[in-house]
Amino acid sequence: MNVDGKNIRTIWLDKSAKIIKIIDQRKLPHRFVIADLKTVDDVITAIEDMYVRGAPLIGATGAYGVFLAALNAPHDRIGDDYMIGEADRLKSARPTAVNLAWGVDRVLAETLAARLSEKISRARRSAGDIVELEVKNCRKIGEHGLPLIEQIRRNKNGGTVNVLTHCNAGWLACIEYGTATAPIYAAFDSGIDIHVWVDETRPLNQGARLTAWELGKHGVKHTIITDNAGGYLMQRGLVDLVIVGTDRTTATGDVANKIGTYLKALAAQDNGVPFYVALPSSTFDWELKDGVRDIPIEQRAAEEVKYVWGLNRDTPAQVLICPADSPAANFAFDVTPARLVSGFITERGVCRATPEDIRRLFPENSN
Amino acid sequence: MNVDGKNIRTIWLDKSAKIIKIIDQRKLPHRFVIADLKTVDDVITAIEDMYVRGAPLIGATGAYGVFLAALNAPHDRIGDDYMIGEADRLKSARPTAVNLAWGVDRVLAETLAARLSEKISRARRSAGDIVELEVKNCRKIGEHGLPLIEQIRRNKNGGTVNVLTHCNAGWLACIEYGTATAPIYAAFDSGIDIHVWVDETRPLNQGARLTAWELGKHGVKHTIITDNAGGYLMQRGLVDLVIVGTDRTTATGDVANKIGTYLKALAAQDNGVPFYVALPSSTFDWELKDGVRDIPIEQRAAEEVKYVWGLNRDTPAQVLICPADSPAANFAFDVTPARLVSGFITERGVCRATPEDIRRLFPENSN
Repeated sequence: MNVDGKNIRTIWLDKSAKIIKIIDQRKLPHRFVIADLKTVDDVITAIEDMYVRGAPLIGATGAYGVFLAALNAPHDRIGDDYMIGEADRLKSARPTAVNLAWGVDRVLAETLAARLSEKISRARRSAGDIVELEVKNCRKIGEHGLPLIEQIRRNKNGGTVNVLTHCNAGWLACIEYGTATAPIYAAFDSGIDIHVWVDETRPLNQGARLTAWELGKHGVKHTIITDNAGGYLMQRGLVDLVIVGTDRTTATGDVANKIGTYLKALAAQDNGVPFYVALPSSTFDWELKDGVRDIPIEQRAAEEVKYVWGLNRDTPAQVLICPADSPAANFAFDVTPARLVSGFITERGVCRATPEDIRRLFPENSN
Repeated sequence: MNVDGKNIRTIWLDKSAKIIKIIDQRKLPHRFVIADLKTVDDVITAIEDMYVRGAPLIGATGAYGVFLAALNAPHDRIGDDYMIGEADRLKSARPTAVNLAWGVDRVLAETLAARLSEKISRARRSAGDIVELEVKNCRKIGEHGLPLIEQIRRNKNGGTVNVLTHCNAGWLACIEYGTATAPIYAAFDSGIDIHVWVDETRPLNQGARLTAWELGKHGVKHTIITDNAGGYLMQRGLVDLVIVGTDRTTATGDVANKIGTYLKALAAQDNGVPFYVALPSSTFDWELKDGVRDIPIEQRAAEEVKYVWGLNRDTPAQVLICPADSPAANFAFDVTPARLVSGFITERGVCRATPEDIRRLFPENSN
C-alpha cells in the first residue's frame, strides 16, 4: 500500500532470502521502523509483543517462522520431530489467532512432505504462497463488500457513507487492502464519498494508532473516537454500516475479535445498523460450534491497561493513567454471538451469519 | 471521606468565609491539590475545565458561585439584573448538568428575595444548605441501595459481589459517599465482600483516575478495566450488578450520563444483569420527556481524545496517541433509554424507570 509514495507490504522476504522484513507496528504512527526476523525466537517475539498483529499477518508471519526453522536448523536436526516442535512453539505465541495455526501447519505439512534437500526451498515457497493468497483474498473481500457500500450511497442519494470500525483490520493487519478496510478502500478508490469512525480501541489503541494512520496515508476521511462513543453515534443516525475484522470465527458464525466488538454489535442491533464482519476463510475455525463457550480468550498484562503509550512532545513515552497500586485486568478479545452479525464478507462473497449460509459458501469444510 | 487518615469533603467554605476550597480533581490520582475559588470566573473555570465534576458537586460549586457573585459585587450592582446575569454565566458553564442550573437558581432565588444587607449572608447560607442536603441525599442513596447488594450476596451464598461502574459517580463527584458508590461504601462498611470493576472511562479516564483512587483510599477491592471490557465480563457472569450515576435524567426515566453508559446498559440487558442508576432527585429534569431527542449533548475538544494525561516516571505529562493530523470527535455524554434501566436508587428509595414509578416517589414534581 501507499506510504508516502512508496508501495509497501507488511511482510516480505529480504533479497538474501534469509531474513524476513516486517513493519514494527508498535512504533506506529509516530515512527516507521522496519524490523528483521532471523530466527524462530524472533518470530515468536514479534507475535507475542505485537510487532505484527492481525489474523492474516500473524498467519503469514508464523508461516515464515516455519521457513526460518528449516533454514536455521542444524543439518542433522531438520527431521520431523524438530520441525514439529518448532511449529508448536510458533503456534503457542498467540492462542486466539486461528490463522497462526493454519499458516504454520500448512507450511509444516509441505516441509515434512519434502525431501531433505528441498525442505528449505519448499518452506519458503509455501510461506510465500500464503502471503500471495492473503493478498488475493483481501482484494476479493474488497470487491465483495463494495456493493454493500454502493447500496448505502444510493439509499442516501449520493451522500457521505459513514462506516464505523473497531481495532485495526486494515492492511497493517494483513499484507495489503486489509479485511474490514478492504471494502472501504475499494469504495474510496471508486470515488464514493466515504468517512470512517475509528474506535481508538483500548488498551493498545490499534484504531487510533494504526487504522487512523493507514486511512490517512491513503487519503480516506476519518475521525477518531473513544470506544465509548459508537452507541451514541448510532443512536443519532451517524453510522450507516459497521465493519470489523475477526481473530477467529466459528462455523456457526460466532465472532471473536478485539475486546469491545460485542458492545458495538449490541448498539448496531439496537439501532438497526448493519454489522458486518470481513474475513478470509482461513479465519474460520471449522471445529467450534459455540464461540462464547469454546473460544479461549487471552489475558494480557495489566500494564497495557495502566499505561498508555504515545508521543510526549517529540519523544515516545508512556504515562500511568491510574493509581500505581490499583489492579487492572486485560482481557484481549470478546465474542460477538452470530445473532448480532448481519453477515460475513469473505473472499468468496457475502453470506449471513448462519451455519447453513457459511456452509453453502465453503462446502468443502462441512463436517 | 477518608484520605490518608484525614476526613475531607470535595468543597468547603474557608474560615475567612470569602474563599471556596475545592480539590483540583484534574491532578488526581497523582497529586492531591486544593484550589481556591474567589470569583465567579474562578467558578466557571473550575466547572468548564473540570477541576470539579459530577452532577451534585457541580451543583454545589455553582451554588457557591452565586454566593461569590453577591460577595464580590460592587455595592451598587448587587441588584437583580446583575445577579441574574452572573447566574446565567454560571449556568452556561456545563449545559448538560441539570444540577448546576438547580443549585444556581435556588441560591439566586433566595438572594433575590433577601434585603440588600442580607443578600450575601443569605446566599452563603443557601449554598451551605445545598451542600448539606447533597450529603444527606447521598447517605440515603447508600441506605436505599444497600438491600440490593445484600440480596445479591444472599443469592451467592455470601460470595463476593461484583459491581461494575462507569466514570466517577463517587464521593469525588459529590460531597461525601457519592451516588453510584454510596451503596458500595454502605455494603463495604457493613462487612460485605464487595469488588468493583472500574471502567477507565475515556477520554478523561475519570474511572481509572478518580474512582480507583477513592475506592483504594477507602480500602474497597477494585479492578480497572478498559471501557471495552464490560460486555465480556457480563457474558462470563463476572458482573452481578451495574450501578452508574447520571448528569440528567428525564421524568420518563431516560438517563444522560458519561459517554459509553448506553453500551454497558445494552450489555447488561443482553446478559440479564441488573442495571441501576443512583441519583439525588435534584438530577431529575422534570420538564423533559424524551432523553435521546431532548437532552443536549456537549461536545468537547478533540485534544481530550488525541492526548492522554498521566504520570511519565514521576512527572505529569500527556502523550499523543494518534497521528497528529487525524481529526477526533469528543461527545461527552450519551442517553440510556429507560427501557434499559432496571431502576433508580434515590434518596427517597428505589423505583423502576417508568414515569409512573418516578412520579409515585416524587409526586410534588408531577406536571
